[in-house]
Amino acid sequence: MSVKRHYDREFVRTFFTSPTAVDGEDDSAKMLRSAGQLRGLQAPDVWVPDNEDATAPNMREEGVENIIEVVAEQGAAFPGEIHPRVVWHRESPATRYQGFQQMLEITDPENGAVEHIDGFVIPEVGDIDDWKKADEFFTIIEHEHGLEEGSLSMSVIVESGEAELAMGDLREEMGKPSNNLERMFLLVDGEVDYTKDMRAMTPTGELPPWPELRHNTSRGASAAGLIAVDGPYDDIRDVEGYRERMKDNRAKGMTGIWSLTPGQVVEANTAPLPPKTGSWLLDVGGQEVELDAQDGKQVYDGDDLSLETDGEGGYVLQAGGDRLELDEDELTEELLDRTAYIPSMTDIVDSMEEFEAAKEAGKGAIAMTQAATLVIDGVEVEVSKDRMWDEATYQAAQTPITLFQDVYEHRPDQHEELAEMYGTDIVERATAVGN
Amino acid sequence: MSVKRHYDREFVRTFFTSPTAVDGEDDSAKMLRSAGQLRGLQAPDVWVPDNEDATAPNMREEGVENIIEVVAEQGAAFPGEIHPRVVWHRESPATRYQGFQQMLEITDPENGAVEHIDGFVIPEVGDIDDWKKADEFFTIIEHEHGLEEGSLSMSVIVESGEAELAMGDLREEMGKPSNNLERMFLLVDGEVDYTKDMRAMTPTGELPPWPELRHNTSRGASAAGLIAVDGPYDDIRDVEGYRERMKDNRAKGMTGIWSLTPGQVVEANTAPLPPKTGSWLLDVGGQEVELDAQDGKQVYDGDDLSLETDGEGGYVLQAGGDRLELDEDELTEELLDRTAYIPSMTDIVDSMEEFEAAKEAGKGAIAMTQAATLVIDGVEVEVSKDRMWDEATYQAAQTPITLFQDVYEHRPDQHEELAEMYGTDIVERATAVGN
Amino acid sequence: MSVKRHYDREFVRTFFTSPTAVDGEDDSAKMLRSAGQLRGLQAPDVWVPDNEDATAPNMREEGVENIIEVVAEQGAAFPGEIHPRVVWHRESPATRYQGFQQMLEITDPENGAVEHIDGFVIPEVGDIDDWKKADEFFTIIEHEHGLEEGSLSMSVIVESGEAELAMGDLREEMGKPSNNLERMFLLVDGEVDYTKDMRAMTPTGELPPWPELRHNTSRGASAAGLIAVDGPYDDIRDVEGYRERMKDNRAKGMTGIWSLTPGQVVEANTAPLPPKTGSWLLDVGGQEVELDAQDGKQVYDGDDLSLETDGEGGYVLQAGGDRLELDEDELTEELLDRTAYIPSMTDIVDSMEEFEAAKEAGKGAIAMTQAATLVIDGVEVEVSKDRMWDEATYQAAQTPITLFQDVYEHRPDQHEELAEMYGTDIVERATAVGN
Repeated sequence: MSVKRHYDREFVRTFFTSPTAVDGEDDSAKMLRSAGQLRGLQAPDVWVPDNEDATAPNMREEGVENIIEVVAEQGAAFPGEIHPRVVWHRESPATRYQGFQQMLEITDPENGAVEHIDGFVIPEVGDIDDWKKADEFFTIIEHEHGLEEGSLSMSVIVESGEAELAMGDLREEMGKPSNNLERMFLLVDGEVDYTKDMRAMTPTGELPPWPELRHNTSRGASAAGLIAVDGPYDDIRDVEGYRERMKDNRAKGMTGIWSLTPGQVVEANTAPLPPKTGSWLLDVGGQEVELDAQDGKQVYDGDDLSLETDGEGGYVLQAGGDRLELDEDELTEELLDRTAYIPSMTDIVDSMEEFEAAKEAGKGAIAMTQAATLVIDGVEVEVSKDRMWDEATYQAAQTPITLFQDVYEHRPDQHEELAEMYGTDIVERATAVGN
Repeated sequence: MSVKRHYDREFVRTFFTSPTAVDGEDDSAKMLRSAGQLRGLQAPDVWVPDNEDATAPNMREEGVENIIEVVAEQGAAFPGEIHPRVVWHRESPATRYQGFQQMLEITDPENGAVEHIDGFVIPEVGDIDDWKKADEFFTIIEHEHGLEEGSLSMSVIVESGEAELAMGDLREEMGKPSNNLERMFLLVDGEVDYTKDMRAMTPTGELPPWPELRHNTSRGASAAGLIAVDGPYDDIRDVEGYRERMKDNRAKGMTGIWSLTPGQVVEANTAPLPPKTGSWLLDVGGQEVELDAQDGKQVYDGDDLSLETDGEGGYVLQAGGDRLELDEDELTEELLDRTAYIPSMTDIVDSMEEFEAAKEAGKGAIAMTQAATLVIDGVEVEVSKDRMWDEATYQAAQTPITLFQDVYEHRPDQHEELAEMYGTDIVERATAVGN
Repeated sequence: MSVKRHYDREFVRTFFTSPTAVDGEDDSAKMLRSAGQLRGLQAPDVWVPDNEDATAPNMREEGVENIIEVVAEQGAAFPGEIHPRVVWHRESPATRYQGFQQMLEITDPENGAVEHIDGFVIPEVGDIDDWKKADEFFTIIEHEHGLEEGSLSMSVIVESGEAELAMGDLREEMGKPSNNLERMFLLVDGEVDYTKDMRAMTPTGELPPWPELRHNTSRGASAAGLIAVDGPYDDIRDVEGYRERMKDNRAKGMTGIWSLTPGQVVEANTAPLPPKTGSWLLDVGGQEVELDAQDGKQVYDGDDLSLETDGEGGYVLQAGGDRLELDEDELTEELLDRTAYIPSMTDIVDSMEEFEAAKEAGKGAIAMTQAATLVIDGVEVEVSKDRMWDEATYQAAQTPITLFQDVYEHRPDQHEELAEMYGTDIVERATAVGN
């Protein structure tokens, strides 16, 4: 990215909103205080004390006080960045003015919180001119409080059609002399209010998947040198669904996701990291099934694919009503087409190191091989996949490693858990490779 | 929406084009006349007497006369809005001039139709400057005929790549002093010609699904305060396919669809309304199956999922080749994950009223519960789903009710059928809730 | 398209990059020379001698020399267009200047290649201002070398978010007096580097499908009168996958695809052409299965659908766990819903001729019928599908024929193979129809 960015991180995995004020508790800052004590994989990359939706309208003044108190107390020790969410609405000048006042108060140097505040999250933004209104308030606040211009970062929640369109204008608006939009940090999708704004409906009331919105957010972030973050995943118990959503997001270039609980934070912090061990996938009836690794062999034990020998050196493979009679080479070919390998952290680092050595030795491309023994209905078949690595493959494979290095640099509180997860040796190699 | 809109309706379900002139008939206005007599759920929200594709080129002068005659006669009693489609083409000045002349003639006060004309539909538009050319003709016509400036609404058919892009510019072009684009009303996708313009091909000649176009239309409508309408569904016999398409559209925020027949109008008028009775869905092999309600229980009678007791208080659930041995809690958990509930009109109104009462009593969030007895292979299992409702949930759930209220206000001719469908009690509560 | 275009072709099927220089060979122009000798269906519509990724950085000067030598030698006889790829990067002025120098050298009239060079491919472009920088170099080169302004066409590889956005600006930037962007020719997606730029990741390292990018490329091309081309398909052995990808692309209006081998060129040249013979599809469990044509009947021999007579004139159809008892009419109806027909070249030409004759005779719409005898488990059922053809259907059906005619006009070297494929009679009719 040649776009100037004021911020340090290239990846944000977790965007954790926690309630600011809980109505009716003795200590309305209780949940805020407990969120500020999170550490390691339970602590988010970006923590968002939420003075908007998570705080009742009549509690928002107290919310500001609580944010100030808790951030002043705990901010120095908190391992992630801190970006409170204030109120804002593209269609309400009164709400916008309240948001300005909340930010002004939170960043008042006399209150002792400002040195731990990295920026603010502005919800319900509209078109790019609305973003500029928020940016102008940041600039005024910085001048009022003697902060460096542009030092507070601004993240927005995209929850309207006009905000979605604004992401396409951002790159050319940033850097104009009349704004400080280089302070932009995260583009966060907010699907609940977006769904309402788009007047979308599903029979069960579930949120629509909005693939195009997520693409446009990811693209807008890429074009403007920012980071794309997906919205909340409501069904907190559904860990598998949360993982699937993150996998889908990563394929769109959206590395971060909103977390509603510390449990979701752990999932979201670990999901984009390469696995400790590699695994093989077998395509069965259009679905990818992960094979069981047993004694170094990859075993399929489902019923939707069957394999037997025909007693004369040939094989019979049955899948989805099809019956294929194959010789050994044809069987290998068929299974090769049906298998894919998910590389481990070690595999990726190995391959990168190998390619770097080859490049140094003057070679532009090398073949990388992954081999496995597949076992289907007790029949064993050897398969081996070659992939050519050139500079482009190398650079594409680098993304998870760059992310890992970004995490490692900015989150020392996670070093211990990462070492437990991967082993210190591979952690060291992973932080060194590609630099 | 803070965008100024000259029109009254927030939702349009049905966009019904009817042929203007049928070649070779004694009475070339016959079909037009019969369309103008539709009432109730058979009558569309927007009726489009079609002087473009549905009328042969050499019949278009007669078409204009027919439109004038029929609208003058029947317009006062017609329950929906009337927006004739005239000819237009982004690449043909001659066609654009003909369109202007057709509109000028139809709105001539001496012809007696203009007081029932709500606007016009402009097909085959190009980029935003082409939309402005049409808007300018509307303005001239309004001045020529002593109509209020901006009183005729303009809807466009999006059937080119440049028109799709123009929807992203509309919000910032509306309200400029040199145009009257606030007259914009519907953004309608026209997939047949769009497919041709994009040079897209499918093996069978079927239309491609164009999910991105529909998203962009819906987003453009949302950003500019307009209403998005999907194009024609050719296979008139395929009612199930038409319903699926509308469901998919609603999840994109596209509430309206083109209807080619009065039968399709009925389907499209009822599809976005909440169902009379709620129903349970069970996820079987990745597909959602609607359960049969029998004696207050929800029965699955397919073969793709089986359940039996193991005689020792446990259960065996088989699905898609997987065999799960579960205790009672695990079974409940598993089935909970696999079920979803489609709320009825009554359910939605109940929940909204309950939340409103809670809010008045000072509570910001309450739990709503849906419970059912599932029956699979004769085995009964109780499940109960909780969902937290806060302000955002409330507002998102409101969309179908807002639509219902919009319908109720603007379509008195449908009151009787709605009362038959839902019962008068719930209709009354549904029109009152949320205001 | 009313957009002015300097180029002749409306469709490009194949975009074939071949290495310019192979390190370590005796003759580093060997592969280039062999690519230049391709003819007929093995020869691409656009040949791209690649002095960027396929050539090692230290070999690029030699690469320029090789391109000059081979194009000077073979260009006159080469049947497709020739557009070398030079280096470029939106974030590197040094790389951009090298790209300029490479183009300047290749087009030097003294080197004898320029008369066979149709244009250049610019990779790694950024926002529209970056495209203008490249365009300016083309203009300078044309003036330096006495070529007509705008005579060299410019194609770009879209491999960044900002380039994706730029495709939405292109139409309004083309034709401004300060640029010559009317020289634009192909918009090519480059998914490997795009994935890297978007920081996207998949578990196996496979490329994400990027449907929205492909839509936006196709739409940008349509709006600006250009041609959309998809990126490379890495898995060279996977012919079926390549065909599926092209089918998906064509449904998006993206007719061309990158080819990495002469084998892929053949596939990509033939894929968008209508088939020699028509075929019937049967929808079985959500998947479309092609039926076997045997003795003029269409036979289903899978296991996922079964049909038997009940001995009393009725039928039992079983599919996906459902068991339907149907009378003859119901059976026909059900099977009609489940079948689709892929028309052959002859079918399309027949239908077009028939519609043209009807139009001449004053009819606006006619019914076209496709009939077949289906055989399922030995039971024969007659089905017959009617489709109304009007002007819009006619024009949409015309796309494959227009493509065929474009191919026929520009690729005389493929006439013989096309005649072998279809027979001379139908080739003659296909080139004549619709004009």
